[in-house]
Amino acid sequence: MSLDLDRYLAERRALVDQALDAVLPVEGTTPPTVHKAMRYSVLAGGKRLRPILVIAGAEAVGGRADTVMPTACALELIHTYSLIHDDLPAMDDDDYRRGRLTNHKVFGEAMAILAGDALLTLAFGLVAANASRVADPRVICAVVADLAHASGTDGMVCGQVVDIESEGKTVTPDTLDYIHSRKTAALIRVSLRAGAFLAGGSAAQVRWISEAGDRLGLAFQIVDDILDVEGDSATLGKTAGSDERKRKATYPALHGLEVSRKRARALLDEAKERLAPLGPPAAPIQALADFIFERRS
Amino acid sequence: MSLDLDRYLAERRALVDQALDAVLPVEGTTPPTVHKAMRYSVLAGGKRLRPILVIAGAEAVGGRADTVMPTACALELIHTYSLIHDDLPAMDDDDYRRGRLTNHKVFGEAMAILAGDALLTLAFGLVAANASRVADPRVICAVVADLAHASGTDGMVCGQVVDIESEGKTVTPDTLDYIHSRKTAALIRVSLRAGAFLAGGSAAQVRWISEAGDRLGLAFQIVDDILDVEGDSATLGKTAGSDERKRKATYPALHGLEVSRKRARALLDEAKERLAPLGPPAAPIQALADFIFERRS
Repeated sequence: MSLDLDRYLAERRALVDQALDAVLPVEGTTPPTVHKAMRYSVLAGGKRLRPILVIAGAEAVGGRADTVMPTACALELIHTYSLIHDDLPAMDDDDYRRGRLTNHKVFGEAMAILAGDALLTLAFGLVAANASRVADPRVICAVVADLAHASGTDGMVCGQVVDIESEGKTVTPDTLDYIHSRKTAALIRVSLRAGAFLAGGSAAQVRWISEAGDRLGLAFQIVDDILDVEGDSATLGKTAGSDERKRKATYPALHGLEVSRKRARALLDEAKERLAPLGPPAAPIQALADFIFERRS
Repeated sequence: MSLDLDRYLAERRALVDQALDAVLPVEGTTPPTVHKAMRYSVLAGGKRLRPILVIAGAEAVGGRADTVMPTACALELIHTYSLIHDDLPAMDDDDYRRGRLTNHKVFGEAMAILAGDALLTLAFGLVAANASRVADPRVICAVVADLAHASGTDGMVCGQVVDIESEGKTVTPDTLDYIHSRKTAALIRVSLRAGAFLAGGSAAQVRWISEAGDRLGLAFQIVDDILDVEGDSATLGKTAGSDERKRKATYPALHGLEVSRKRARALLDEAKERLAPLGPPAAPIQALADFIFERRS
């Protein structure tokens, strides 16, 4: 495979960063505080993994980045809203995120709650605005439904609920899989899937990509857990070892590092297998699978 | 006008209550706490004004309740999410709402934040699901965009931000109008508008109804302020006089009760004037205008 992944990621990240800057109300928009708080967390950097997966999902079925850009941005806004709310004192009570103070440490709790609410709301507005770039508006309705499903109580929110309720308790491997599949994997899966769907992918193509997305998402969370054990705070941009301190359920804590690494690798290999019928256009997603395994932050 | 408003409201409220019960995940759905928290606040009663306005908006252009029911439910979920988050200790710190303990008093802050997030998310999923009941899916995209606009930082969230930031300060009449038009009127306007739009209203019909909605929404908030001064806690279901204790900006505080009543009446008369071209099908909205003025809770 001749794909230069670093270049691929850098180019798409630049496009996404530019688009995010454009879809967020400009600094100074009334009322200024909430817009500043929204921009602070969204424009704090980050890998832009979810928007890049939306783009890669589109490209895998022959589509283009600009067709799906509003929805790519929406995925990053939903991810950021979830981080802002998860970091709140009533939830995980984290002080650092992406190497900077968390939103509520800078803007206060009320503004952090409202900035998160506003980002989630704006995200759905962006998917609706994506209608002008696709031929069939029914696809937009399906993506809104999919996104609501993956972000709500059958997805991300419920993953966070069970995660919080499991703190300090012994969790079973099944519960841990449940948390991981909903808290992280659901949004990663829906990112790839939305891209393929918006770009006009066939039912079979969307299914292959969704199945790969499930496995990529789970592997991503397992690697995240491994990094929390192994990494240092400077590289991670958040406090390393924080999962253990909070007695959070993690994959390495339950299964050990060795088994965790093997499981992540196996899931990523399965993902690559699912993508095989798509051929060369899916090369970026294939490369992303390796990137997820090898990442250090 | 021979419309029996009490009966009209009771019948539609029953339909809405039934639909809300059906769209919310049943008690016991995993994870149970967040679903219990969602059901607790949504099914706490309430006037169901916003969903009834969605239905009345549809009926005013010749549509039927069942065509717009998923969106009608969505409006109530968005309203409820905003109440749950507004009541949080970091925001208005209220203990009672609709005559019962607020969500966070029963389920804790983390769960209240997540239940609100889940309701907002589910709301957008419901609007998307409404696609199966309309002929043109582009209408759904427009309603999602409209709803995101009315609920986000150009609407409800920004009204709440300015409201919080104005506590304990002297606000100008312009700032107060700004808060009212965004915090309450935007969602009331979009309720009527969405109903008319989903039911296939013409551009002119949707415009008349939107203009009436603006005025109904502002009048509703002014009457709310008046009730907070005049009402007693038992009738209101929340703590009366709480605006004054928190030194919240209110219409009577700035303009006096007499002027406030006159302004509300004038706005409602303007709303009725805007609805005149729609004829008898708009009778329920006309009657709702009087109901808003005369309500005691």
